[in-house]
Amino acid sequence: MTTHDGKPFNREMLESLVRRRCFYLPSFEPYGGVKGLYDYGAPLCGIQTNVVNEWRKHFVKREKMFELDCSVLTPYDVLKTSGHVDRFIDWMCKDPKTGELLRADHLVEDVLEARLNGDKEARGEKVETQEEPAKKKKKAKAMNVKLDDELKKEYEEILAKIDGYNGEELGLLITKHRIKNGDNEVLPPVEYNLMFSTTLGASGPAFLRPETAQAQFLNFASLLEQNQNEMPFASASVGKSYRNEISPRSGLLRVREFLMGEIEMYVDPEGGKKHPRFEEIKDVELAMLDRHTQTAGKTDVRKIAIGKAVADGIVDNETLGYFLVRIQQFMAKIGVDQSKLRFRQHMANEMAHYAADCWDAELLTSYGWIECVGCADRSAYDLTVHMKKTGAALLVRETRKQPLHIEEWQATLDRKKAGPKFKKDGKAIEAAVDALTQEMREKLSLDLEREGKITLEVPEISAGSVELEKELIKIEKATRIENTREYIPNVIEPSFGFGRILYSLLEHSFWTRPDDAARSILSFQPSIAPTKVLLVPLSKNTDFDPLVKRLDYKLSDLGIEAKVDASSVSIGKRYSRNDGMGTPLGITVDFQSIKDATFTLRDRDTTKQVRASEAEILQAVLNLVHERETWADVQARLPAFEGQEVD
Amino acid sequence: MTTHDGKPFNREMLESLVRRRCFYLPSFEPYGGVKGLYDYGAPLCGIQTNVVNEWRKHFVKREKMFELDCSVLTPYDVLKTSGHVDRFIDWMCKDPKTGELLRADHLVEDVLEARLNGDKEARGEKVETQEEPAKKKKKAKAMNVKLDDELKKEYEEILAKIDGYNGEELGLLITKHRIKNGDNEVLPPVEYNLMFSTTLGASGPAFLRPETAQAQFLNFASLLEQNQNEMPFASASVGKSYRNEISPRSGLLRVREFLMGEIEMYVDPEGGKKHPRFEEIKDVELAMLDRHTQTAGKTDVRKIAIGKAVADGIVDNETLGYFLVRIQQFMAKIGVDQSKLRFRQHMANEMAHYAADCWDAELLTSYGWIECVGCADRSAYDLTVHMKKTGAALLVRETRKQPLHIEEWQATLDRKKAGPKFKKDGKAIEAAVDALTQEMREKLSLDLEREGKITLEVPEISAGSVELEKELIKIEKATRIENTREYIPNVIEPSFGFGRILYSLLEHSFWTRPDDAARSILSFQPSIAPTKVLLVPLSKNTDFDPLVKRLDYKLSDLGIEAKVDASSVSIGKRYSRNDGMGTPLGITVDFQSIKDATFTLRDRDTTKQVRASEAEILQAVLNLVHERETWADVQARLPAFEGQEVD
Repeated sequence: MTTHDGKPFNREMLESLVRRRCFYLPSFEPYGGVKGLYDYGAPLCGIQTNVVNEWRKHFVKREKMFELDCSVLTPYDVLKTSGHVDRFIDWMCKDPKTGELLRADHLVEDVLEARLNGDKEARGEKVETQEEPAKKKKKAKAMNVKLDDELKKEYEEILAKIDGYNGEELGLLITKHRIKNGDNEVLPPVEYNLMFSTTLGASGPAFLRPETAQAQFLNFASLLEQNQNEMPFASASVGKSYRNEISPRSGLLRVREFLMGEIEMYVDPEGGKKHPRFEEIKDVELAMLDRHTQTAGKTDVRKIAIGKAVADGIVDNETLGYFLVRIQQFMAKIGVDQSKLRFRQHMANEMAHYAADCWDAELLTSYGWIECVGCADRSAYDLTVHMKKTGAALLVRETRKQPLHIEEWQATLDRKKAGPKFKKDGKAIEAAVDALTQEMREKLSLDLEREGKITLEVPEISAGSVELEKELIKIEKATRIENTREYIPNVIEPSFGFGRILYSLLEHSFWTRPDDAARSILSFQPSIAPTKVLLVPLSKNTDFDPLVKRLDYKLSDLGIEAKVDASSVSIGKRYSRNDGMGTPLGITVDFQSIKDATFTLRDRDTTKQVRASEAEILQAVLNLVHERETWADVQARLPAFEGQEVD
Repeated sequence: MTTHDGKPFNREMLESLVRRRCFYLPSFEPYGGVKGLYDYGAPLCGIQTNVVNEWRKHFVKREKMFELDCSVLTPYDVLKTSGHVDRFIDWMCKDPKTGELLRADHLVEDVLEARLNGDKEARGEKVETQEEPAKKKKKAKAMNVKLDDELKKEYEEILAKIDGYNGEELGLLITKHRIKNGDNEVLPPVEYNLMFSTTLGASGPAFLRPETAQAQFLNFASLLEQNQNEMPFASASVGKSYRNEISPRSGLLRVREFLMGEIEMYVDPEGGKKHPRFEEIKDVELAMLDRHTQTAGKTDVRKIAIGKAVADGIVDNETLGYFLVRIQQFMAKIGVDQSKLRFRQHMANEMAHYAADCWDAELLTSYGWIECVGCADRSAYDLTVHMKKTGAALLVRETRKQPLHIEEWQATLDRKKAGPKFKKDGKAIEAAVDALTQEMREKLSLDLEREGKITLEVPEISAGSVELEKELIKIEKATRIENTREYIPNVIEPSFGFGRILYSLLEHSFWTRPDDAARSILSFQPSIAPTKVLLVPLSKNTDFDPLVKRLDYKLSDLGIEAKVDASSVSIGKRYSRNDGMGTPLGITVDFQSIKDATFTLRDRDTTKQVRASEAEILQAVLNLVHERETWADVQARLPAFEGQEVD
């Protein structure tokens, strides 16, 4: 992977930078830390708040979604019904010698990748170690053995499909390719549920939610009422979800506790799931990797306009397509490198148990392509199972514009005569008549015409069946008018993992000065940067203090986060330190400032400076932070400042 | 309790309103709900986001705190060390007949309040039923029995101190006053731990955090480094915490999962915990109920300037006092009724195990005075116990401005001679010398002078003691210069429960139209209201649509949440419905608008309207929402519109 200026990306440098500046840290470090749990320090916490706010603006507010804040603690019954108790699992292999529990797909992946690397070394090709986390390397060492061409191809195809295998298939791969944990054979893959369980006071067993979706679905009836019974509409939720990985790795990319943003768009399953604003975005092109390409063992991405993708059936429907485009626009807004974004369709056996179609927005990082947003068509799965279980009306009742005329066979028992005749059996017989299918009714109407009576099976009565004469029953074709339509909505769900997006953003924003590779920069968009302006007095001379304080208060009044760095190192060092925090702008207070109240304004990415009056500088800051001007604009209209950055 | 216009507050009306408008709902309602878990619907979720943003602005940004986002999942060891495993408990009484578990303090409170109400009825006084939740009433019925004057006074004193009793004391009260659960005797109070427990994959037992504080403390060393080793500073965190109530009641006021905002301000314990900005706020008056007043069984509140309260020792120090004032200012900003806010000091036995002093900001609701913010001086408790347990350096090392000259007894072993003489015992002997206290050294120096040798206990060597002659050891008074000072900071912690603040805000904002008690209004500040502007076309006439859409898009561009209500009910009904959602402003699009592009702007609280051009109306909205103008200002400068609200 390369940085935006085409140099090789260096993960170790980024990791050292974010560690030094406390972007994130292992949680509970004095206690040795806990795998898969991280604390966000002030810089990343600030970025997270800005990204979430942007998300709210881009999705929730613009599309007038109903935002909910639901309980994380979720009773057992809810997640039993949703299928998570039985199917939210990973496949685990136990190493019986060491007692280690290993994710079966990770084990296969590690070993095959190591063999492929060994093959490359044997062939004298370059091995891209950057692509793999340090931990993997330790587990499965490259053996420097050349592989048969056929076998090499087979390994590559397995790796391309690695997310799509079930437990049995993984077991077969492990046997066939003699995959081991080091030198140890492993036991066949078994299910391991990924939810954290706990107990609610006196109210029984519960889990920490694996997604925010279920609680949103259970509020569907209230939401529909709030929306004055109009379809379609969406609910949304931002909150933490949990996944009890047995032994997580890959830093921020695979954690046990994570912030999600989930949108549930409720749509009518009839009429092709059209979206009212699809027209506006139909020409936007996306980089797509569809199911068929992957099933063929390939990873070639095609650029396709979403309108064409939906028309050609590559993307199932307009609503799904609309969100894919909106996701791409969101990624652009927060500063994700658009050349490192692709949309990958899930393969059939890779999809979650509730999904009918699913596209992941994946971002390219030094760990490979990472799923950051899942965009699934959950069909009517969840609403249906909850309705069936609880009887709650999780459906839409709408008045038909045109009443529906249904021609059908109607079967009517004459109650006045049947009642006295059948006495206690009457109810069961009536129920049996009501339960007759259209086909049965048609057949029985012929019997009735031909023989003047019919024989009806009624298992509930002692005789087992009953004869009904013409006088007792009427069966005839008639037209019924249906004014109301009832249906269970389908759900299109874009689901965002903010932690993964933030990590990718760190990698995409990272580069080093062309003239000094030791100087790291994080080029965040001004709207996303945790601090917008660095205030730097030239030295510790106290004459600068009132000016620094005044600028600080004025920026604060303008709602712009500023930070003062009055430490005793050189101005150049202070700027460089804050380039590594991603602070886009800097204002220097120098002796000239004391004389004429002018200040210099510095741009992080170009390190160029301009000099102007306080009012002009503040206005330029405001324009830059709110993205009403670019640095080039500011540079064009304000006088340049050519003073050296003293090192 | 009364509403802001002096009428009796009606909780049932508010509850019906918030239910109808989906402010909050029991979580997982189709499954019967779970006690103590609530989902926030769109209106309350929007208010919460606004209040949290205001909190970030008011505290985190203004005071440049380090905001952290830490793990909710917390390993056992951390909370064992912090004392929560042993002391984060409630006292429970079991009813052996029904198997019910009851909070001991609630039981005492319920029964004594019922008896006092019975006494009032017997005396023919009015019983304020509004003050108590419906559920309490059911449990302990008023008996209509007149109490002895002495006994009545004793009951009132117990209730004033109810939060301050431990398990033993509650047990004694239950025995002495024959307190029962209905007709059943209860067993003596026992401890019940309030944390949710779970297991972290292969990493062992854990809890859901009961507070965000512990993870913040464990980051202290990194934070201090980020702050370039300067003191004082603060960290802050917004996130969910958990409390496994056995059987919660009182709606949003007593929940199992809640959003907290916690600030940890790290201060030097020496020099009186002064605050650099105390001077700015020292004249602000607070309504205070101190410890002594309560211990005397009274509840009289005094208005005292914070400067005087600190000077008189009512509030322990400036930093604590500074935050009390900042809390009051925050409450004012979000619209809490200032006449329903008081600061109550914890009594000695009521404080959490870590606290040295604590003041609660309490808000008056129909449930009584509710603790919404706790402001505690946690002393050095937490940092000390974690440092002791883990060895992490959770302390400050600072260079003394004036080096400290310490006169002390120094004892020095002559290593060159001692080494060959004592061989393998040498190290133990040297350690024993180093471990000598100042008193011992002084005494031994006299021995050495008198007898030319000393006898030193060294339990680690086989002989158990050793003789050291003058040639081997020197003991003398000397001056040591200490350039560095080491100390463990104290922590002042304002801790906010957002759910309780939001509920109180609902009660404080609620009133009904003077001319129509059926019309409910929620008078939120514009900055807090979930929707700022209601857009109302006069009728379903499609000629209004382009104008409504244009206004909607323009408001959206200005960052102002607008909502269109084009339902077919009258304009009056639509306004009234949105008064109950707390929407402060309304714009009507009528036939005049089509002709001349003027619109009416309506104020929720007065129902008055003005009419002006689109630009003027949008500018007025912007000013009102950002609180740069009041409605009175707008009304004074724009022409009034006298059209009736058609009902």
